[in-house]
This record gives sequence, C-alpha cells and structure tokens, in this order.
Amino acid sequence: MESGQGAAPSVVLAVDIGGTTVKGSVFVDGVELIPGRTVPTFEGPFSAFDAVLELVSGLARTARALGYEPTTIGAGAPGLVDAQTGLVRYAANLGWTDLPLARLLEERFSLPTSIDHDARTAARAEMAARPTLRDFVFIPIGTGVSSAVVSAGKTVIGARGQAGELGHVPTIPNGRPCSCGQFGCLETYASASAVLAGYIAAGGTANSTADVAKLVGKDALADEVWSDAVNALATGIIMLTATLDPAELIVGGGLSAAGPVLLDPLRERVGQLLGWRDSPAISTSHAGPRAGLIGAALLDTTVQSSFSHMSQESP
Amino acid sequence: MESGQGAAPSVVLAVDIGGTTVKGSVFVDGVELIPGRTVPTFEGPFSAFDAVLELVSGLARTARALGYEPTTIGAGAPGLVDAQTGLVRYAANLGWTDLPLARLLEERFSLPTSIDHDARTAARAEMAARPTLRDFVFIPIGTGVSSAVVSAGKTVIGARGQAGELGHVPTIPNGRPCSCGQFGCLETYASASAVLAGYIAAGGTANSTADVAKLVGKDALADEVWSDAVNALATGIIMLTATLDPAELIVGGGLSAAGPVLLDPLRERVGQLLGWRDSPAISTSHAGPRAGLIGAALLDTTVQSSFSHMSQESP
Repeated sequence: MESGQGAAPSVVLAVDIGGTTVKGSVFVDGVELIPGRTVPTFEGPFSAFDAVLELVSGLARTARALGYEPTTIGAGAPGLVDAQTGLVRYAANLGWTDLPLARLLEERFSLPTSIDHDARTAARAEMAARPTLRDFVFIPIGTGVSSAVVSAGKTVIGARGQAGELGHVPTIPNGRPCSCGQFGCLETYASASAVLAGYIAAGGTANSTADVAKLVGKDALADEVWSDAVNALATGIIMLTATLDPAELIVGGGLSAAGPVLLDPLRERVGQLLGWRDSPAISTSHAGPRAGLIGAALLDTTVQSSFSHMSQESP
Repeated sequence: MESGQGAAPSVVLAVDIGGTTVKGSVFVDGVELIPGRTVPTFEGPFSAFDAVLELVSGLARTARALGYEPTTIGAGAPGLVDAQTGLVRYAANLGWTDLPLARLLEERFSLPTSIDHDARTAARAEMAARPTLRDFVFIPIGTGVSSAVVSAGKTVIGARGQAGELGHVPTIPNGRPCSCGQFGCLETYASASAVLAGYIAAGGTANSTADVAKLVGKDALADEVWSDAVNALATGIIMLTATLDPAELIVGGGLSAAGPVLLDPLRERVGQLLGWRDSPAISTSHAGPRAGLIGAALLDTTVQSSFSHMSQESP
C-alpha cells in the first residue's frame, strides 16, 4: 500500500443481523455507496452465519467492482453481544452461543471487524442524526424488545458487555413465561411477535402485527392485546425514567411503524403513571428502520483507530 | 494569598444531609481532620436548612481553630438534585422544592460549593475505596430507596440531573400508593421505614427496622414483611441487571446493617428470578455508613477545578 496524498477512503462493509433478515450495505467515508441489500436470515438448510457470510462476500465484490477496496467490517447483532471481545454470547433467535463473530469475519475476509449489540449500533445512528441528544434510550421492538442506554453521549455497555435487555425486565409478577426462564418479561407482552401471537391466541385473525395495529380502536380483542403491550412498555419506560432520567425514549424496530397508534396511548399511559415527575419525550427513530445498519457502519471509527494503532506496532 | 512553596491544602467542609440526621466533617487533602459530627435534621421550630447552616458554621470554626482555612464545601442531599445548577429540585423528606442549596451556602460562607445526590456521593466513596469497580449500582436504603448508577467509571446523572430514583420504580402493578403519586413503588415495600411501618400495621410490635430484622426467621409476621421487601428489591435488581449489566449491586444505608439477613435471601431471590443470566454480585457498602459523607468530601475535586478556572478569568 502506498501512502500518497490524501488518506485512503474508509470503505465499510456494514451488516445488521436480525432474527428474520440480514441487511447490508457499503459505506465510503460515511456515505452509502450502493442501495442496501436484504437477505433472509434462515433459508433452507443454511444457518444465520451462512447468510451473513454470503451477504458480506457480495458487498465486498460489489465494492471492488466499483473500485473501492474494503477497509473494515462493522456488524450489529441481537442478544448478548460483547463488543470488547467480539463474541455473541447468546442470541436465541439466531441459535448462537459464544460465537466469536468478529474473529470469524476477520479470518474469512482478512478485514478488521467490530461488532456491537444492534440496539447500540442503532443508537449511534440516532446520535449521528441528532448530535444534541446526549441522554436517551433507544428501544427497538421487533421479534424481541431490547434497548441501548446512552448517558452523557456514551452508550452503556455493562460489566460484561451485556447491557440492554429491556425485554427481560419483569413487568407483571408471575406473568407470562418467557423463553429466558423468567415470568412476566416485558417482551412477552410488547414485542411485535407477542402482539401478533397474543391476538391469534385470543381468537383473532391477522397475518402481521401491522394488521393488529390497524384494528386498534375498531376491534375489542385488538384493543386488549394492544393495551397489554402499551402497559408493559409504559412500565419499562417509567423504570428507565426513574433510574436514568433520559431526555427522550426513542422507539424503533417493526412495532414503531404503528406510529401514533403506539405513541399516543404510550405517552398517555406514561403520563398517568409517572406521578409528580415530568414525562420524558417519547418518539420514533429519526434514523429510521435502517438505524441499526447505519450505526454498524459507524462502528468503523473505533475499529480504524484500534487497528491502525496495531498496524503501526507491527512491522 | 501568596503562592509559596507547595500548594495550600484543600480543606473541605463536607456534609451529608439526610431525612433524620445531617452528618458533617472536615477533610484536609482527603484525610479527615476531626471525628465526624451528627445533628438532627429537624429540631424544634428549625428547618433542615438551619441544621445544615449550623453544622457547617461549626465545622468552619473547628477547622480555623486547628489552623486550617476552609477552601470548599461539598454537600450530598437526597431527592432530585441537579449538580450542574446546584439546585435541590425536590426533596420531600426535607421540605425542599427548587432550593438553590449551592448558591445559598456559597453566599453564607464565601466558599465554592458543590452539591450532588447523596447516592452519587456515596458511589464516589465506593469507587475511591475500590478503584477497579467500574460498572455498579449503589443502592442506599433508609427513609427511602435511591440509587447511583455507575457506568464505565462515570456516574449517570441524567438529562435533568434526576437519575437515581430506584425507589419509584413500580414493582407491583396497582400496588401500595406512594407519596410520589404512583402505585407499587419499590420503596413502599423495601425502604427501612416501610419495613417498620408494614410490620406495625400488620399487628407487630417493634421500635425500629433493626428490631424487625432480628425477628426474621422467628416471627411469621416479620418473615412476611421482610419477604415483601426482598421481593421488591429483587425485582429492582433484575431490572437494573437486564438493562445495565452491572458487575455488582452495593446495598447501603440503614437497612444494609441487617447484613446476611438481607443479603442471603436477596441473592437467592435474584438467582431464582434471573433465568439464564448470571447473577451479579450483591454486597454491602465497603465505604460503610459514612460513604455519603466521604463522597461529599470528594466533590471538592470538581469544585476546585471549576473555581480555580473562574478565578484565573476574573481580575
């Protein structure tokens, strides 16, 4: 490699790994080079990791075809993600336990790789879109419910990199059983999947959570399921507000597509429950449904600094 | 003031303001100069602020009598404390609303003054005692229950300086009414005052929470009240663990004097409830019952830097 005039561009292969789809794109110095791509997480006999490998391979080929040499990989993943060690400790929806995702991608593509919890990558995108936002919680609601707590502009990682599991906060004592082994977890009432499953279990007919959202105010069964979800989320938000005093709670993920159907009753319920305390703002993502992917591209900054340091050290 | 050889010592008048007592002491370069003093917060017709003024006056006189000129005041207070503006926004137990505590003390004593939430000052003392502790939550349990969240070595202050109100996290839907206007707040079951009041309301006879703690395992009524407190605390701890992943939860304040009578069932309950996730360590304060006071003396660092900067700016 030559060190000519001007630094080589940062060319990031960014992926956002979800329980249903894996999204990917190429970012050159922070600008998206191609329209993003989406592949199913599980297809036929293939694993979620196979889907990631195939998507990243395709992104690398595309970048090179357009004249850009990839410099790093940034990936967001759900579950218990340890950004420091690059391990996905546990991701039930992907079937991963202690998967060394960063190392596996580095070895396969010979590119420095950073990973982080998908809620935290989305929170990075949110901060990039609104730099004045310093204390907030980003709450993606999809197959599960998680969160990224940002305090004074820094994401809270936790002692073992496992902060963010808002979905496993108990909201109803001895409530619904959760796959995590606890009872009454927030996500057993408020995830997009739980809303749909709850509606069908109660005798309703719907193909998607969006269908259920459309029936709110028109169908008593939908109202009941929606109200359970709103109450569980409100309980989680009150808890976050009491302990962390965020300026704003930002709802992302699939369920946030319901917009005012979700936000209006949620704001009302939080206001009713909060007692003497002012309610924080509650909004939907400014970075949009691709927040996790955009944030995965931003992981690059960290990677670049740590790896450029390493390459200066080695001969 | 002359700038001779060696900097003048830092002489801090430190106070820890509680609902029952105000503690104070003098610290010279971080070492306590005198045995700490304790006065009742409310005495006859006098206000909590009168008690603070009298205590600080006495500390200043003592410091001067021993040849030390006070340089700063550091104060910890309960309730909603905004360290940035020096305001105590709301402290129900003290009768304070929007009290400019820092400014009032500065004007009265002509000394730069820093204030902070008492749980956060205690957490500073805890960090000073154990520098490797980077991600933890300090939970003082007395008249009320609060908390200080420390993430990567930084205390979480919140958007309006109002983080820490763990006592007002709802643990039981439609549970006991709380003075804050909510229902089922953690502190309506788990504060030292709630334990004593609950035991008496149920027909028991006791003069203090310590009396109730001594009856645990011997008296069915005490067992029941204690179990309610343990369950509420366990719910709060699970919620903190899920969202913040602390390495340790440190219980302080009056109730922590119960030691294993509190910690053993609390660890057991948290372990039962946490499902697949490893339990964080649960311990009592290493800095002891005077953690809040020791931490108030440590506030000095911030004051010194901000005020020395100011005095360089002005002629």
